[in-house]
Amino acid sequence: MSEKIYVGVDVGGTAIKVGICNADGQLLQTYEGPTEAGKGTDTILQNIAKYAQQIVVESDYDWAQVDGVGVGIAGFLDIPNGIVKFAPNLKIENVNLKAYLEQELNKTVKVNNDANVAALGEAWGGAGRGISHCVCYTLGTGVGGGIIIDGKIVEGYMGMAGELGHMAIVPDLEAIQCGCGKMGCLETVSSATGIIRMAKDAVERGDRTSLSQVDNIMAKDVLDAAKAGDEVATRIVNRAAYYLGKSLAMIAIVLNPQYFIIGGGVSKAGDFLFDQIREVFEKYTQDQAKENVKIVAATLGNNAGVVGAAGLILRG
Amino acid sequence: MSEKIYVGVDVGGTAIKVGICNADGQLLQTYEGPTEAGKGTDTILQNIAKYAQQIVVESDYDWAQVDGVGVGIAGFLDIPNGIVKFAPNLKIENVNLKAYLEQELNKTVKVNNDANVAALGEAWGGAGRGISHCVCYTLGTGVGGGIIIDGKIVEGYMGMAGELGHMAIVPDLEAIQCGCGKMGCLETVSSATGIIRMAKDAVERGDRTSLSQVDNIMAKDVLDAAKAGDEVATRIVNRAAYYLGKSLAMIAIVLNPQYFIIGGGVSKAGDFLFDQIREVFEKYTQDQAKENVKIVAATLGNNAGVVGAAGLILRG
Repeated sequence: MSEKIYVGVDVGGTAIKVGICNADGQLLQTYEGPTEAGKGTDTILQNIAKYAQQIVVESDYDWAQVDGVGVGIAGFLDIPNGIVKFAPNLKIENVNLKAYLEQELNKTVKVNNDANVAALGEAWGGAGRGISHCVCYTLGTGVGGGIIIDGKIVEGYMGMAGELGHMAIVPDLEAIQCGCGKMGCLETVSSATGIIRMAKDAVERGDRTSLSQVDNIMAKDVLDAAKAGDEVATRIVNRAAYYLGKSLAMIAIVLNPQYFIIGGGVSKAGDFLFDQIREVFEKYTQDQAKENVKIVAATLGNNAGVVGAAGLILRG
Repeated sequence: MSEKIYVGVDVGGTAIKVGICNADGQLLQTYEGPTEAGKGTDTILQNIAKYAQQIVVESDYDWAQVDGVGVGIAGFLDIPNGIVKFAPNLKIENVNLKAYLEQELNKTVKVNNDANVAALGEAWGGAGRGISHCVCYTLGTGVGGGIIIDGKIVEGYMGMAGELGHMAIVPDLEAIQCGCGKMGCLETVSSATGIIRMAKDAVERGDRTSLSQVDNIMAKDVLDAAKAGDEVATRIVNRAAYYLGKSLAMIAIVLNPQYFIIGGGVSKAGDFLFDQIREVFEKYTQDQAKENVKIVAATLGNNAGVVGAAGLILRG
């Protein structure tokens, strides 16, 4: 019972998920409780501390075994100091989360943003287990990312590294404006939102496609239609995969990671999508920079956040 | 006299340059001797060892002060083991340079490739002194690069990181094949070679340009013609700056460095070129990822190699 354990906390807008990992990034136990974001900052903070303790107390592990507590949270952070400068979905502003939790829990606490933490989770305990150099993409509403070099999260100068969805990858001629205000971001074509937009545009334009029969088009509808051979849907998915693959090729030559790990809703299309990405990657990446490089699917799903948060203690 | 010193060796095809740096990356002394590449591997190795000792012996410093010797060399390397797998311009193959020098010099030796070493030189003792996160470009015959995160060189999984010239940045419609075999590499438009090629193409096409009067067009001719208002030359320089600026924008969002340091022959065009790069960077980079980010000129010139090589001991 003297094995060290690591507690990870994934703070979401409606639920706080906590987990216990061992030093190898294996998830041993999880627990989930309500965030109660409506009750204000104090309640949220108390809940984080409470659930982190509770999961250990109610387990076969001892609080003394806890080597530290990591927290992943969406928002603008001062990562080294563990300060939440602004978390829009929780309405938390200028709170020193690290200091609060270290006082409450009497353990080392590390805080990082949700995208970095999910990337670390996959790198440490998921698809990239044992791999030191990984780049992770999450294809959801947006395109999130995280970069792991020598096993650790790359934060960059102001903590902005890994925002892969905002690579200006689409050429001007066919670029549209991204939610961030810039033109041609990867997210405008390779996110679920981007895929849905392209599909709706096609339907509105009157393109001949099975998607015109679908009421409220979701990314999955487009991927399914493409798998079934619909030409318009195929063109859309090709485009999403093309720019994604090109962004991988650029990152391969800049950082030479061993694994690209791709997760999020859109990635569930599986090999149908991955094979297209691999083909583009193959075409645009210099030979030495792609030697033994793998493009793989994320494996932890919604648990990437708690695993990565726990991983902050050893690998943050 | 007990201050620690660091010896850097920059192994070129015709000359071996050595330098002494202090712990702050200040270059205290340099010496240069012939490589004698024609005399074979043994002579080259002996020369490296000889010059590294000589510069210290003939200085006011003592050999006992030497904390280590770093070597920068062009070629395919096994960096962790300091093995030169193949250095085409020196005709060296499978030599454990690190082991040889450690035996001869009785000091810690580190070996890295010339591009990484030049980047570290600028980051450690040049334009990036005191800055932990830098990305360096060298605009010469090709486009070289090097990435410094937390003060250290990023090697990547197989030592291929930082090959910025091979980012597939030019869209298919206007891409040409690079020397590496791939289409659309940054190097095809933003290197001296790329600029010269575009100028020659324009002249051959019969475009109206002052460059048609120039016998053997060099990159400097094109840059000078652009400065003088020649429209064709301006278009070429705009294009070189555009794709360079776009690559900076992508790297800014992937790695969030504080400084981009640009050196090499083409960079001597100065603010005329830099202002164009800055404008493109501004346009395509998300606000937070460019906050306080600077695009600056390299300052060490040909000394970047020896300084960076010396820096390998503390920062490699």
